[in-house]
Amino acid sequence: MKTMGLEHLTLVNPKYFPHSEAEAMASRATDILDRARVCSNLDEALNGTVFAAASTARNRDLSHEVLTPREVAARMIAEAHHGPVALVMGAEKFGLTVDEVNRCNVITTVPANPQYSSLNLASAVQLFAYELRSAALQRDRLPQQTFAPAEHGEIELFYSHLERTLLDIGFLNPKEPKRLMQRMRRLFARARLEHEEVNILRGILNAAQECARKAGKLD
Amino acid sequence: MKTMGLEHLTLVNPKYFPHSEAEAMASRATDILDRARVCSNLDEALNGTVFAAASTARNRDLSHEVLTPREVAARMIAEAHHGPVALVMGAEKFGLTVDEVNRCNVITTVPANPQYSSLNLASAVQLFAYELRSAALQRDRLPQQTFAPAEHGEIELFYSHLERTLLDIGFLNPKEPKRLMQRMRRLFARARLEHEEVNILRGILNAAQECARKAGKLD
Repeated sequence: MKTMGLEHLTLVNPKYFPHSEAEAMASRATDILDRARVCSNLDEALNGTVFAAASTARNRDLSHEVLTPREVAARMIAEAHHGPVALVMGAEKFGLTVDEVNRCNVITTVPANPQYSSLNLASAVQLFAYELRSAALQRDRLPQQTFAPAEHGEIELFYSHLERTLLDIGFLNPKEPKRLMQRMRRLFARARLEHEEVNILRGILNAAQECARKAGKLD
Repeated sequence: MKTMGLEHLTLVNPKYFPHSEAEAMASRATDILDRARVCSNLDEALNGTVFAAASTARNRDLSHEVLTPREVAARMIAEAHHGPVALVMGAEKFGLTVDEVNRCNVITTVPANPQYSSLNLASAVQLFAYELRSAALQRDRLPQQTFAPAEHGEIELFYSHLERTLLDIGFLNPKEPKRLMQRMRRLFARARLEHEEVNILRGILNAAQECARKAGKLD
């Protein structure tokens, strides 16, 4: 990270931290470890970010848009004009869960050799960090966007509100939820919700819930 | 190397080879070690190549052209049409000697953080291998999950249905519609709705309308 000019490391629920082995491996870059933020879950880590990319090696069902490391780096540098952005990497052995990937806007995959794609975590981080630096060094060429994006926390509150409302109006069957929320997440992740849009959508949900409450009195 | 599809490793005057530690580190990529060629000097290693790039972190008083990893990868892939090409990396601690760099065609340097440029050898090899693979794949896109996009007519029907529902649930005031539908159109236009998503969204609207109908009987 430090070789590529990155400074902000956030650790989600680390098994051991701080740890002498990490200090030793960090060589003269221990300042990054010293300043590392420790969170208990991914939502806490992403709180306040406006864009998050999930790194995953596997192909998944209902996946978000898949970008190369180069594409995702360009996108992250562009989005960083609006607020903090995050690259989300899973643990060495198991990577990210579907639930964690769903909390991000896009997926990024290193185009590794299909016959031997097991890039280790350190190598993957190095590649992404390098692409981010390369993209940052060319930032003048990147397109500008003009809207105010919603941040992670308010979007998660919207998803909770949406799910609650779909239950209230009888569309989502709690016994057979299938992958409805995942599909909704995929749709709105593509849209890159704006702050004002989240407010409007939640106003709509409130109105629908109010109808469901009144209708419930009839049943 | 193997994760990026590279196969030919040449070792110049290695201190220990083969070595059990190298085997252990190679995980399931020991075939690259098994096939590694051992040479006693760089000239022997470069024999038969048509192009060689020397990786070096330091600025040197050398007249060679200096390329970024991305530039050198593109160049190497182009030169590879004419014969074998080589990326020449120095040992971990001291890098390449001036004499060794002079035997190559160009110099390449990773654009690292000037405050902390000490990329280790493994990381540097990983970056160059990745750039070589990216250059070889050129503009090939990662496979995307493809869903059928919604067509214009069904999206327009969705917007009509949405507007009708927003009136029914009392969110949209027909006397003061403002630009609500315009904002909704802008949001869903960015998402580029899929056929199946339109069906799901219209199912949600039907459920909300059903609640509104029941609630209406109470008023």
